[in-house]
Amino acid sequence: MGEFDLIRRYFLRPPGTGVEVGVGDDCAVLVPTPGARWLVSSDMLVEGRHFLSTVDPARLGHKALAVNLSDLAACGATPRGFTLALALPRVDETWLAAFARGLLKLADASACPLVGGDTTQGPLNLCITVFGEAPPGLALLRSGARAGDEIWVSGRLGDARLALEVFRGTVALDGAGFETVRTAMECPTPRLALGQALRGITTAAIDVSDGLLGDLGHILAASNVGARLDVDALPRSAVLAAQPVALQHECLLAGGDDYELVFTAPPGARLPDVGVPLTRIGTIVAEPGLRVVDEHGAAVQHGLQSFDHFKS
Amino acid sequence: MGEFDLIRRYFLRPPGTGVEVGVGDDCAVLVPTPGARWLVSSDMLVEGRHFLSTVDPARLGHKALAVNLSDLAACGATPRGFTLALALPRVDETWLAAFARGLLKLADASACPLVGGDTTQGPLNLCITVFGEAPPGLALLRSGARAGDEIWVSGRLGDARLALEVFRGTVALDGAGFETVRTAMECPTPRLALGQALRGITTAAIDVSDGLLGDLGHILAASNVGARLDVDALPRSAVLAAQPVALQHECLLAGGDDYELVFTAPPGARLPDVGVPLTRIGTIVAEPGLRVVDEHGAAVQHGLQSFDHFKS
Repeated sequence: MGEFDLIRRYFLRPPGTGVEVGVGDDCAVLVPTPGARWLVSSDMLVEGRHFLSTVDPARLGHKALAVNLSDLAACGATPRGFTLALALPRVDETWLAAFARGLLKLADASACPLVGGDTTQGPLNLCITVFGEAPPGLALLRSGARAGDEIWVSGRLGDARLALEVFRGTVALDGAGFETVRTAMECPTPRLALGQALRGITTAAIDVSDGLLGDLGHILAASNVGARLDVDALPRSAVLAAQPVALQHECLLAGGDDYELVFTAPPGARLPDVGVPLTRIGTIVAEPGLRVVDEHGAAVQHGLQSFDHFKS
Repeated sequence: MGEFDLIRRYFLRPPGTGVEVGVGDDCAVLVPTPGARWLVSSDMLVEGRHFLSTVDPARLGHKALAVNLSDLAACGATPRGFTLALALPRVDETWLAAFARGLLKLADASACPLVGGDTTQGPLNLCITVFGEAPPGLALLRSGARAGDEIWVSGRLGDARLALEVFRGTVALDGAGFETVRTAMECPTPRLALGQALRGITTAAIDVSDGLLGDLGHILAASNVGARLDVDALPRSAVLAAQPVALQHECLLAGGDDYELVFTAPPGARLPDVGVPLTRIGTIVAEPGLRVVDEHGAAVQHGLQSFDHFKS
């Protein structure tokens, strides 16, 4: 099967709403919403680094798009479409059919059509670029946090990292516990509805992809403020809560791969209810630095850093 | 050096015109031109397949962006920005500095700012996604060619493939000849001004990336027509013209990596002069199929196919 057959068979769909030309020309042609800003983000996933070679390809398809949609969510954007560039060592039709199924299922559920891309031969590599829209001045950025703001997080943190430790053989879980954390790692839910509902409410927002400390650190650096973070308040699953405290802290603070939203808002802000739990986890302070404390306000030693693709 | 230092040091620039938020947040935020359509294209380049490991990194930076801009050119789009996702085996500062220099020089010359992206560790892989704009209904597509239209091509074809044959050791050239064809292979010029000038004039257009036969074939398939192509009319360098005829035909018809525009226009159309030579190379006919003839109208046997990343 050649490159063009491959695209046609697995990835070609009729253009969606607002897509004048989809897959199959030199460019896709999209119709922007009048007055809206255009938001773009791009993520590259490499085998052995971002995913295990044994992962279910349908889950990989889901996750490859989910981590990109999570960037749109962090900016409060409405998805409009995405491109997929795919390097494959060989054409494996069973793998491709499952990958496309997982990918396009999330694309359909997110009203985010595949509009173009590229396929080539090479070490397995997936690069997705997503496009979305937000009204002028309402994109959620990292740079607006102010002293006194509350820090909030959606959902739960740490399960994806706990699953990775199971795969690494450093932690053992029972079947049900492993399934819970494995699903968190392999099937993250991009918080698109939450991000859109937070337009005009948050002062800063980011998604947790490299670990809470590092990603919150980006907000602090961009906003030129500091934070006090209550580690005991961090929302976690019962599976993670049953682990030793040091491991919990590592997973919660430096785990990464969570794809939850961390955001800041003034005290008393009316936060939206879109069916995703929101937990207050700390406070923005004027003094630079990120101080991790327990529920009694005592400093917690952690020695943890955020994930960096060229340091770890 | 970590991932974020790397981005900051080599790729961070102040946001350009129409870019509200550039590199450094979860998404870039761009301001679309009111009423314009939004065009996107994505290409992935893999070491050993799209470029040789010995290539000058500045030329690689140029080419990685050029092949993407060529897709915008083929649609008649005005560039607005691009994202870069980069997998690197290791951080090599000399390589990165040169790569970024070549990349950003073309970006500046094309008014196409880098607005975001991703860096990670992995087998060398470059994925660029470009964004551009065109007025409604004026994007050049593959689908409008009609019987009787003339077929035109910009610049010259075949030099990039001839250079590849020199690298493969099947052809020997003198120093000046090699430099000519090597520059064609490593430093293609995206025909952006030509593409924009052709808005409203062409009936169909494409850029020659996989070889003239295959790419013209995409126009024929999308337009449901056939063509008669005059191989003797195909524009070529003196270096290529000095090679055996069979090799000339292979380079001209199936070479690929040319990044010239092939387009169709009604007889008598006023073609723009943007300083790029335009050559008439054939005629669209109603009968399906692509017939290659010589200057006397006699059929030319070639047995050539277009380049396919999963067939060759």
